Parts: sequence; C-alpha cells; structure tokens
Amino acid sequence: MPNPESPELSASASVASPWFDYPIRVYPHHTDYAGIVWHGSYIRWMEEVRVDCLAQAGVAFAQLVEMGCDLPVVDLQIRYRQAMRMGSKGVLKTRLEPQKGVRLLWSYELWSTDGLRLHLTAQVTLVAVNRSSGKIMRRLPGVLAEAIAQLYDPNCTLDSQET
Amino acid sequence: MPNPESPELSASASVASPWFDYPIRVYPHHTDYAGIVWHGSYIRWMEEVRVDCLAQAGVAFAQLVEMGCDLPVVDLQIRYRQAMRMGSKGVLKTRLEPQKGVRLLWSYELWSTDGLRLHLTAQVTLVAVNRSSGKIMRRLPGVLAEAIAQLYDPNCTLDSQET
Amino acid sequence: MPNPESPELSASASVASPWFDYPIRVYPHHTDYAGIVWHGSYIRWMEEVRVDCLAQAGVAFAQLVEMGCDLPVVDLQIRYRQAMRMGSKGVLKTRLEPQKGVRLLWSYELWSTDGLRLHLTAQVTLVAVNRSSGKIMRRLPGVLAEAIAQLYDPNCTLDSQET
Amino acid sequence: MPNPESPELSASASVASPWFDYPIRVYPHHTDYAGIVWHGSYIRWMEEVRVDCLAQAGVAFAQLVEMGCDLPVVDLQIRYRQAMRMGSKGVLKTRLEPQKGVRLLWSYELWSTDGLRLHLTAQVTLVAVNRSSGKIMRRLPGVLAEAIAQLYDPNCTLDSQET
Repeated sequence: MPNPESPELSASASVASPWFDYPIRVYPHHTDYAGIVWHGSYIRWMEEVRVDCLAQAGVAFAQLVEMGCDLPVVDLQIRYRQAMRMGSKGVLKTRLEPQKGVRLLWSYELWSTDGLRLHLTAQVTLVAVNRSSGKIMRRLPGVLAEAIAQLYDPNCTLDSQET
Repeated sequence: MPNPESPELSASASVASPWFDYPIRVYPHHTDYAGIVWHGSYIRWMEEVRVDCLAQAGVAFAQLVEMGCDLPVVDLQIRYRQAMRMGSKGVLKTRLEPQKGVRLLWSYELWSTDGLRLHLTAQVTLVAVNRSSGKIMRRLPGVLAEAIAQLYDPNCTLDSQET
Repeated sequence: MPNPESPELSASASVASPWFDYPIRVYPHHTDYAGIVWHGSYIRWMEEVRVDCLAQAGVAFAQLVEMGCDLPVVDLQIRYRQAMRMGSKGVLKTRLEPQKGVRLLWSYELWSTDGLRLHLTAQVTLVAVNRSSGKIMRRLPGVLAEAIAQLYDPNCTLDSQET
Repeated sequence: MPNPESPELSASASVASPWFDYPIRVYPHHTDYAGIVWHGSYIRWMEEVRVDCLAQAGVAFAQLVEMGCDLPVVDLQIRYRQAMRMGSKGVLKTRLEPQKGVRLLWSYELWSTDGLRLHLTAQVTLVAVNRSSGKIMRRLPGVLAEAIAQLYDPNCTLDSQET
C-alpha cells in the first residue's frame, strides 16, 4: 500500500515498538472487597501509559483531539494472571504491534517491580476517527504518524520518567 | 409564555422541595479493601439521583447541555456516618433547598432500606453556566426554571421508579 | 468428570442460558471528553448485571464471598461497536455460555432500548477461588452450582425488574 | 493533655504541617462530556497524595491496615474553583491541620503547574478505627503517631518525587 504521507511508518510496520515503561502503585481506590485491584481499575492505567507514550513520541493526546482526530478503543482484551494487592508497586509495559493502517494495536504486560510476577497481559486496539464526521480516517494525521514512526525507530529510547 | 424572571420559582423559593428517592445497591466495584463502599463511590449515585430528579420534573440533562447550559458542581460536602457493606441496599434521598438565583443546592440523605441506618448526609451546589462563554448565567434557562418550579410544587409527587 | 453435587448442571452444560436483561442509562460520570461513554465505564455495568443475574437465580454475591468463595475475573474481551451518548438508554444482556468446570463464561450484548443499535459485545470469564487458600476450587459451591443450574433451565424466566 | 506515647505530636499540634506536593495530569478517563475533569475524579488524587505523604513520613497505608488500623474518611468538603482540561497538569498540595486526637484533618489546594490558577480547595477528615472492633481508637497507633509527628516537624522536607 503506497502511503506518501508516512513512508517511515510503512517501513517500520513489520516489527513491534520497544517496550515503554510506566510505574504504578496500588492505592485504596483501586481495590475492591478482596483487598486486590478491582479488575476494571487496570483500564485507567492502560490508558495513561499509552497517552504518555504518545506524548513522549511527540504528540499530545489533547492536541490530537483539538485537531479533530479521536482515537476510540474498539477492542480490549485482558488476561488477568496474578492479583495485585493494596500498596504494591509494578511496571506497566506497553508497545505498539506492527502497524495496520489507521488501527493502533497496543500490547501490555504488567509486572511486579521485582520482575518476578506477571500480573496481567492485554491488548487494546484504537482506531483513528474524524471527530466531525464520526468516520474512520483514511490515514493517520501527520503528527500522529510521525510520532508512531518515532516509536518504531529501533534507536528510540523514550524515558517514561520525564513525561 | 410570560416568564421574565420565573415568578413561580421565586414564590416557592422559601421551602425545600419534597424528597426524591433513588434505590441503590452496593456492587463489588463500589467497594474497597475494607469490604465497604469506597468514599468516592457515593459521588456517582449522588449525580444519578439529581439527573433523574430533574428528568422526572421535565428536563433531560443531556438536552440542557445541548441547549448550551451546563450545571457544574461548585461545592460538595459529605458527612460519612455509617459504612455500607457489599450487597446491601439503600435509598438515596435528595431535595432542592430554597432557591438562590442560578445556584441549585441539593441536600442528600442515604438510608438503609429498612430506614434504620443513616449512612451519609451531603450537600451539593451546582451553578448554571453558559457553555459557549463559560460564564455564570444571569438566570436559569426557561425549561430548567420550570422543572425546578415543578419540584417545589407541594403537590408534586415524582415517582423515581418510572424514571 | 462425575460431579455428584451438581448433576443438573452437568446435564445442562451444552447450551447457553437465556439472556438476562439489565436496563442502563448513561449519566455524566460515565462519559469522557467526547460526550460518549468512556470505554472503561462499561465494565461496571457488566459486573452489576452478572451479580443481579446470580441473585435472581438464588445466590447473593456477598454471601458467596462470606462463605469463602470468590469469583475473580480471569479474562475479559470487549468489542466496542457503536458509542453511547450521554442521556441515552440501553439494555445490557448477559447469559452463561455452556459450562466448563469451575469457570463461568458470560457473554454480553449491549443494545439501544429500541433494539436498533448494538453498542458492544463482550465476554467475561470468572473462576471460583477458595478465599482462604487462594486456590482454584475443584468444584463450585453447592449454592452457586444450584443457581447456575437454575439459569440453564430452559423454563427459567428471571425478571430483572424485580431484583 | 499528657500523652506519653507521642509527646512530639502534642508539642506540634498547634500548627499545620508543611505542604506536600503531588504532581497530577489529566487523562481522558478523568474527564466528562464537558472535556474537563469530572468532579468526582479529584477524590482519587486526594487519596493518593495523603497515602504518599504518610508513606514518605514512614508509615505505609497497607501496613497500617494489616496492623488492624483503618483510616476511613468521615468528612469531605470540596470547593471547585476553576476547571481542569484534558491534558493539563497541576500540583495537588496537601497538609495536616493542627491535630485533634485521633482525627486527621487534611487540607488541599490544587494549582496549575505555573501556579497561576487555583483549581480546587478541599478538606478531608479521617478517623483512626480499630478494624476488628469497628470502634474509634482512643489514640493513634505508635507508627502513625510518629509519622505524623514527623510531618509536623518544621525541619521536615519530604520529597514527593522519591515516593
């Protein structure tokens, strides 16, 4: 598929981007009666890490929305492996899987800080939508395509701490 | 419709409206590690009951927003008295206190279904804002003023079940 | 696997249970900047409907937990099809898919009230866990197995309105 | 009031503790249809900052709970001053007001990062409760009293970044 607007993107579409790390900590409001993270609470962290990842790569989500592009979630899959208890810390890792047009497929792994326990794996698919028409875009806006190309760059080393 | 400043509303401004009842039930997602409702979860129920109360009185919140009027919360006060456990039921009661211009002051009482325990009392103040200018409105939009006058009517008997 | 405790269950394991309906309404707290339901908000409704469904079938979730049995979510899959706007209503339908041991597989469909729009389809898998040991149970507790058998009964007609 | 367990605490009870800063950022899940932070979302940040503040002062909330002491919110007051938009950043500041027995009164101010806009002021009151009896404690557990004394120490300089 010839895509004159984002050549770097096409070129790097065959591999996943490097993992982007996001530190998390379990506060009381994340927990339920069982003293562990309620299964829906993870969704918020998953959103935060991808917003931060894109911000690090050069595109602020709020600006994207102001430009008329939205990125709604169209598919969500979570496999819960080991519960997280109140007060515990972890690292939520995300990366972009090989590109498919205007769909962004993010993979997730949530590990304990010591790297010994895998709490969760997940996949979230976003699609670029034109906010005024409500229709799926034919191609990604330039700033988003560039940010994504940046993520796929093997030399890319984003620092989640400086976000 | 002659309504220069909503006279019915002014006339009824000296008393609170009758209580409007909203049945609630505690699901796992409302709870925290202690097995009781997390203190922030009540905020959602409090919003739901006032939206339903206004809807019963004739004004749909979504329509109000489409008309360009928003009702942001400017003040919130909650006194937590007795915790609610997972699985328990209750009745969240709300009413409008005597009117003060474009400010709506809602009072709340959350009782156990058997009426023996008072879980919470609260007050929430909303103010009518023009969405395009972001400024406080000089008077309430007609449909909202009428709905509120309806609530203050001593003969008003809204049925929360039919919402 | 012979299971002397819940023979009806085994017998009915080959078909899904009838759909159980749960009415929903979109309040401001469910929405995000786009004026539609934030993708994580659906998770709460999905939990509510399955708790209600089990309650109708005879087992209160809180009692199950007190008895020492928990039902954590181990897998969650959601396909978002059409957004729901603030103020809109819908019916969240759920049913149990054919039984697989101590795993409960719930399917979901969220329809607009007029039945014309399918907003979401989803599947959630729960597994019965012994709360004190943290281990997966070898078989479902009797009260849960009976409630589930009730759901699979083709003559079962639960009324979500009376919950 | 002679209090042999926490003399430093009594000594420092007449002044508020120094402000403790907590950086925040508005993600999509915090917003509502108006594109600003939904009024209930602030409650989570307010909990996070006080948990972090106590952790910095030496007591982990999860450990406190394991020791049998809970700190439920008994009173919450929020004054919303200026809305926060999606993507914006701020600093949530908190401090302990002068001590009153087993009640902890936290004050909050939420400022824009540039310090020009005050988004919110709030007060939250916690009370120390014995988890097994459900009753209010006669005095704070030693570790908590020590952590609090640490906060009141005028030489105390907690670093929220290292939490």
